[in-house]
Amino acid sequence: MRIDIITVVPDLLKSPFEASILKRAIDKKIVEVHLHNLRDYTDKSYNQVDDYQFGGGAGMVLMIEPIDKCISALKKERKYDEVIYMTPDGATLNQKTANSLSLLDNIIILCGHYKGVDQRVRDLFITKEISIGDYVLSGGELGAAVLCDTIIRLIPGVLNNETSALTDTFQDNLLAPPVYTRPADYKGHLVPEILVSGNFPKIEKWREDQAYERTQKLRPDLLDY
Amino acid sequence: MRIDIITVVPDLLKSPFEASILKRAIDKKIVEVHLHNLRDYTDKSYNQVDDYQFGGGAGMVLMIEPIDKCISALKKERKYDEVIYMTPDGATLNQKTANSLSLLDNIIILCGHYKGVDQRVRDLFITKEISIGDYVLSGGELGAAVLCDTIIRLIPGVLNNETSALTDTFQDNLLAPPVYTRPADYKGHLVPEILVSGNFPKIEKWREDQAYERTQKLRPDLLDY
Repeated sequence: MRIDIITVVPDLLKSPFEASILKRAIDKKIVEVHLHNLRDYTDKSYNQVDDYQFGGGAGMVLMIEPIDKCISALKKERKYDEVIYMTPDGATLNQKTANSLSLLDNIIILCGHYKGVDQRVRDLFITKEISIGDYVLSGGELGAAVLCDTIIRLIPGVLNNETSALTDTFQDNLLAPPVYTRPADYKGHLVPEILVSGNFPKIEKWREDQAYERTQKLRPDLLDY
Repeated sequence: MRIDIITVVPDLLKSPFEASILKRAIDKKIVEVHLHNLRDYTDKSYNQVDDYQFGGGAGMVLMIEPIDKCISALKKERKYDEVIYMTPDGATLNQKTANSLSLLDNIIILCGHYKGVDQRVRDLFITKEISIGDYVLSGGELGAAVLCDTIIRLIPGVLNNETSALTDTFQDNLLAPPVYTRPADYKGHLVPEILVSGNFPKIEKWREDQAYERTQKLRPDLLDY
């Protein structure tokens, strides 16, 4: 899979791809992530990529021209399955979307910044608008990092133990059951007896019950699907 | 405001705090962000901080002891308003939560990693569990960065133009209206005439109508509140 990320602050995105699972996926050549600085695609002085809003109002808007140039240059090189715009008014990201995006070959992710991008960018170039949640960030960069993380960890070969992703919260619309590790007794706080019983069918049953109970208590909406 | 983040991969969190608005907030001394490497709080060999799950199953679990030590050390220095655990089964972050957290003085954010933390950590030390959305990340680090971004940008003095945050999507349960910037004519694609009319009361009305229409079309659930 190849991911091209277009941003005005590529520096912000460096460390998420230089550590942990994302780095491992890149090192294993399972995924390629390319950061593109929007400022490299403008002819304006001072590398200007944003301007005031038509109609007045606070906040700058990313201009269409450099975005058009950057996306066009990428599209000349290869076919893209999706051109995604990270925006708080996009469709809310969930595990199902992550699962389906993880099957694609080439995607572009455009990060909004300041007050967003010129609406014509969205009308002309964007095939999918995604929000990571109902809150506002200072830019789409962290959203893009989040999106990449959710997608990349699902690609076979990225996680060391693939069954780990399958038992995660949300993969079956249930929250995960509680987990415990050593010591069994921490200052008088014990792990549930069943988990140290060695009776694996019973442990499995306990975990299923806990996952269901937790979901019913904390996120009953997930059970409606 | 002071934010202490506890993590096993502090490197992953470096660049989000070294660029853009978060860096500016830190430079202006409006907020202090301290990263704590959980591995500095273990006595085990190889700086071990995780172990296998009791009862079997894929994925490692962060142990209670180093987390207890780190949180205790921080609490000795000052009083904390909240000890937050980033986890996909926490309460879903929204703008309202961000607004209220932005008023606090000192918070600790514990990042889960691998399969999560020992449940006893959650039972004994955590005062608030937050999820940034219904999807699974390889760790709580990006979630913590997202949470910090949503909070910090709301603190007075962080954004250059404070009215900008007030007109963001979600602050009034409406999506933001479309925005446009120069050129007015881009390869034949024009900005809406109203925005270049100079009639500001009409522009204001148009924006309100657009915000409402967009919300009704894309996120009718937001209008139910």
